[in-house]
Amino acid sequence: MPSSTVISLDAMGGDQGPPVVVAGVRAYRQRHGGEGVRFLLHGDETAIRAELLRCGLDESVCEVRHTDKVIAMDEKPAQAMRRGKGSSLWNAIEAVKLGEAGAVVSAGNTGGLMAISKLILRMSAHGLERPAIVASWPTLRGVTAVLDVGANVESDAEQLVEFAIMGEAFHAAVHSHGGRPTIGILNVGSEDMKGHDEVREAHRILRADGAGLNLDYKGFVEGDDIAKGTVDVIVTDGFTGNIALKTAEGVARFISALMKEALSSGPMARAGALLALPALKRMRQKIDPGAINGGPLLGLNGIVVKSHGGADAKGFGNAIRIAVDLARSDYLVKVSTSLQRLTTVLEQSPALVEPVTEPAQ
Amino acid sequence: MPSSTVISLDAMGGDQGPPVVVAGVRAYRQRHGGEGVRFLLHGDETAIRAELLRCGLDESVCEVRHTDKVIAMDEKPAQAMRRGKGSSLWNAIEAVKLGEAGAVVSAGNTGGLMAISKLILRMSAHGLERPAIVASWPTLRGVTAVLDVGANVESDAEQLVEFAIMGEAFHAAVHSHGGRPTIGILNVGSEDMKGHDEVREAHRILRADGAGLNLDYKGFVEGDDIAKGTVDVIVTDGFTGNIALKTAEGVARFISALMKEALSSGPMARAGALLALPALKRMRQKIDPGAINGGPLLGLNGIVVKSHGGADAKGFGNAIRIAVDLARSDYLVKVSTSLQRLTTVLEQSPALVEPVTEPAQ
Repeated sequence: MPSSTVISLDAMGGDQGPPVVVAGVRAYRQRHGGEGVRFLLHGDETAIRAELLRCGLDESVCEVRHTDKVIAMDEKPAQAMRRGKGSSLWNAIEAVKLGEAGAVVSAGNTGGLMAISKLILRMSAHGLERPAIVASWPTLRGVTAVLDVGANVESDAEQLVEFAIMGEAFHAAVHSHGGRPTIGILNVGSEDMKGHDEVREAHRILRADGAGLNLDYKGFVEGDDIAKGTVDVIVTDGFTGNIALKTAEGVARFISALMKEALSSGPMARAGALLALPALKRMRQKIDPGAINGGPLLGLNGIVVKSHGGADAKGFGNAIRIAVDLARSDYLVKVSTSLQRLTTVLEQSPALVEPVTEPAQ
Repeated sequence: MPSSTVISLDAMGGDQGPPVVVAGVRAYRQRHGGEGVRFLLHGDETAIRAELLRCGLDESVCEVRHTDKVIAMDEKPAQAMRRGKGSSLWNAIEAVKLGEAGAVVSAGNTGGLMAISKLILRMSAHGLERPAIVASWPTLRGVTAVLDVGANVESDAEQLVEFAIMGEAFHAAVHSHGGRPTIGILNVGSEDMKGHDEVREAHRILRADGAGLNLDYKGFVEGDDIAKGTVDVIVTDGFTGNIALKTAEGVARFISALMKEALSSGPMARAGALLALPALKRMRQKIDPGAINGGPLLGLNGIVVKSHGGADAKGFGNAIRIAVDLARSDYLVKVSTSLQRLTTVLEQSPALVEPVTEPAQ
């Protein structure tokens, strides 16, 4: 573990800006100690200092870097890129590029964060249009990392394999802390012949070279394997991943609404709910979005963590926790080594990336 | 409503065969009256007659068509097609082709049912590799039909429009009983520029010609719109649809397991659960797979309804209900007219089916 880890924060990002970001630093320190972790806070100095005072944090932990300029939550990515230079978001990312910080956390405009991160840090993965977003999904067995859940609408076989490499390194750094995560590719069935060309080709590459890439590849998994926690990392294109994630959120809200309705449907049910309340509250925490807040953007030459715009201090604190775990791990080196090895593997076995010609089953 | 509706049943299909199929007929009649509905039961005469006697059903309602031959639940589609002739599944479908029955219900081998249905009845929709499967999804506002959920892994724009036509006619016949269902295309965002070429092109066709096809097209919807019930019919390719459906099933089971754990986590919680039990049971019924069992295979020249292999009598009865509603409606005529109109629309405006060339957003 390095003697000091520096995390760069976009203090103006999110629906509330400094009050949540600074309280998030406090929440992180209360929960995780935060020894040896310092912060660079980019944004309005007066507003930030007022919050630091309120939270009892001083300059030895939180260094303020003033800027007046802020990117609005509703600015388009192209606009954010054009006029973003010198903004709190821009400066926060630049601190990673300059080596002043090991990671950046922002609750700001997602499109702007993606575009400016890509511009400043550049992609490390080959051919990705945008950084991949990884979701940490609560399951019956722990947490499964699902990626990509939103940025890359179409992904070829090589990109799916890159997702496997990045997702595995992420899970090892943040959720299994150095263990060897297992990997699956999301498909409509578990037989080798199922699915479209891209997933079958990625499956072939991982089957053949998973060991060479030091990946524990388990094969195809289906939609219901996500919540089961069948594997630690699930790889899919951004279109399918985004729809799976939002479908799951919708179903969770639907069941929660039905449960609320059921538990208030009469005096007996209401009395029962009252008795079971503490247990039900503990259950809710297991699927609380705040507890799993913090989605890293993978595939960049640097660590960027996106917090939900509406996250509270506890949620922002969790995004900081993910950034610290990634910054302190060998994540970037591991991914870079594996991506280089993948390039060699694909060059040496060109047959592997030719289109699969057998008819789909 | 015709004076008599005949439903053809594969009495040997499913995990249990005649006991569930015949009890399913009784369950359907108990729940829906079943006046003017007769059944043709294909399979082992002795076994079927024993069940008819047990259920108090006679020849005026249930006509038995004997055959010794049965397709096993685990036979591959190609094998089922090769040796399927004369089997209970084959004969049940053939009765629809011959005009003896208005619809067929089978809880048998899905792959075999698809392959033999396609062989005997032929596809009505253009270019589909296999019939589309539609899922009836319980939502906050009623039931949303989602298709395709499994058979066609890749779908071009024209096929997505065909799913819209078939899904709308299905919803009108079974869930909104003649109303004008609203339609959405599943995508990663609601803006016109989001998603891949196929969904954007289908969106353009439906935007331009939804009115000409007499469809109430509302635009793109996202994953969480499924359980919200934002629209009545949601169109997607079989890969995404299958993964969304199974992801949702997984999440529902995950929450159900957490709830069970929470409600048995101590004496207070257990007492609360006991009091709230009737309300919780009513809630479970709303998401009970049996209550929503019965997935029609769409795109065929005839009505084929698949029941889950493990469905109980109530579940099989619900699949019969769907088959009866479809057989008594103008579903087949409506779909056939719309598909013809679509062909004309696409021929007259060839520009519409050219690939979209703008960059994806």
